[in-house]
Amino acid sequence: MTDLKAYLLLKQSDINQWLDAFFTRQGTNGQIREAMQYAISAGGKRVRPILCLAAAEAVGGNPNDLMHVASAIEMIHTYSLIHDDLPAMDDDKVRRGKPTLHVQFDEATAILAGDALLTLAFQLLSDAQYIVPEEQHRRLQIIHSVAVAAGCSGMIDGQMLDMISEGKNININDIKLLHKKKTGALIEVSVFSGALMGGANDEEMASLNQYASYIGLAFQVADDILNVIGDPKKMGKAVGTDADRDKNTFPSILGLPDSQEYARVLIGKALQAIESFDKKAEPLRAIARYIIERDL
Amino acid sequence: MTDLKAYLLLKQSDINQWLDAFFTRQGTNGQIREAMQYAISAGGKRVRPILCLAAAEAVGGNPNDLMHVASAIEMIHTYSLIHDDLPAMDDDKVRRGKPTLHVQFDEATAILAGDALLTLAFQLLSDAQYIVPEEQHRRLQIIHSVAVAAGCSGMIDGQMLDMISEGKNININDIKLLHKKKTGALIEVSVFSGALMGGANDEEMASLNQYASYIGLAFQVADDILNVIGDPKKMGKAVGTDADRDKNTFPSILGLPDSQEYARVLIGKALQAIESFDKKAEPLRAIARYIIERDL
Repeated sequence: MTDLKAYLLLKQSDINQWLDAFFTRQGTNGQIREAMQYAISAGGKRVRPILCLAAAEAVGGNPNDLMHVASAIEMIHTYSLIHDDLPAMDDDKVRRGKPTLHVQFDEATAILAGDALLTLAFQLLSDAQYIVPEEQHRRLQIIHSVAVAAGCSGMIDGQMLDMISEGKNININDIKLLHKKKTGALIEVSVFSGALMGGANDEEMASLNQYASYIGLAFQVADDILNVIGDPKKMGKAVGTDADRDKNTFPSILGLPDSQEYARVLIGKALQAIESFDKKAEPLRAIARYIIERDL
Repeated sequence: MTDLKAYLLLKQSDINQWLDAFFTRQGTNGQIREAMQYAISAGGKRVRPILCLAAAEAVGGNPNDLMHVASAIEMIHTYSLIHDDLPAMDDDKVRRGKPTLHVQFDEATAILAGDALLTLAFQLLSDAQYIVPEEQHRRLQIIHSVAVAAGCSGMIDGQMLDMISEGKNININDIKLLHKKKTGALIEVSVFSGALMGGANDEEMASLNQYASYIGLAFQVADDILNVIGDPKKMGKAVGTDADRDKNTFPSILGLPDSQEYARVLIGKALQAIESFDKKAEPLRAIARYIIERDL
């Protein structure tokens, strides 16, 4: 666990440094840039970019070559949090221990800053300075996969389904589909992008996709569990909000003990999917275990 | 003028058909897709995609090869209208003669449908089925340029500046910059993308960029003028709203007659920029004239 902690802290700091330097180069002049930087620099676990880097490492790639891809994915994640927190959506006031963007600035700025981070992610993914001619094809594949994962068949549809199903009775398959879209899709494309940039062969890619699919679901199960039993101080956001809002969650459908067991089973399957990988996949294994052991 | 009308109607119908077929293939299942299609099929002049096609034609390209690029730009334009119409922004109730998206559905759906159209544009631009290997480099250039134009240095910053400057005294240079970003950037990238896909050489590209920069500004001047003297029935939206909202507009700063003269001067310069082009540029010339003669 200490090793993983060190690994996560190191990667978090790499990503934070990269993002800081990037936004400093961009300049923070103007309200929209100020708001974007507020949201990005509020921290967070950086799970998705770390997964992206770790997937590249697992197949022998150099994580330094894809800091901008990992950062672009974090921008998309951050935009989705900004929009989900809006009064018209989940109406959350605190995120990552700080006032949410629409509280700190205003609603219009939060909508626009979210839009801007989403757009900036695609700007970054297509920036010629990070693309060598041989990988143009691969790069277009990544842009396309990220758009599909973040779009109306993936993350956005997941958020829509989540809101529509509030207060309604849905079954375990409905909630699995909902979360596969809402949380799973972006986690899966983080691993996919890293693996593709790292040079994964077809077999490795298939295993990593399986791994990603299991941890994506486990991550959301763990999130739901933490919303019941987590410590708001550690998490930097309120807990108990799902129940207050009559949200469908894994604990609300399966109960708490079965949800905890389900998360463990999923992580077991994730580890099995990458069993044949050598020690370069240790970070991926450690992240899988972290997902059910984390307290924030 | 009759020729142009026929040209515009033909191209509008091409684009509408392409978008219809695209969304039919995607399926309209689910609230998010229904909302996206509602917004897209509400019509509109389709000025940006038509400019994209006409720019390709002007340099000898085949407009059929870039219907998906033109349509992606229209999706970005439509998303920007959806978000600008939100209660937290301009709070508009009618658009293109129909209830705005947040009125027809709800605010959350409107935010998400806007996000989804923006994301779908990048999905479409990077879709392998539309890209031949030789043009991967050009395609990445288009994705990047579209992202820059639509992002926090372009359209989104323009909307931010527009809102921040409501009720404040700004001068003619401020409003030119504001509109260069808010409206000009996407119009410019429409022409740029079409020209690049059509195979423009450097000289042609420089002229077309100039053309686009002038008509982008003229388009906004004309929009401001129509908000004062336009017919709401023809336009499918309310007029007089800028003054009610104490918005800075060209008529509010220059007065109406000088704004009309300014629009004419800009169009003259746009026509001059493409003077050396042959008759394949007639549609571009006609669109420039249409911008100051239109009544919607």
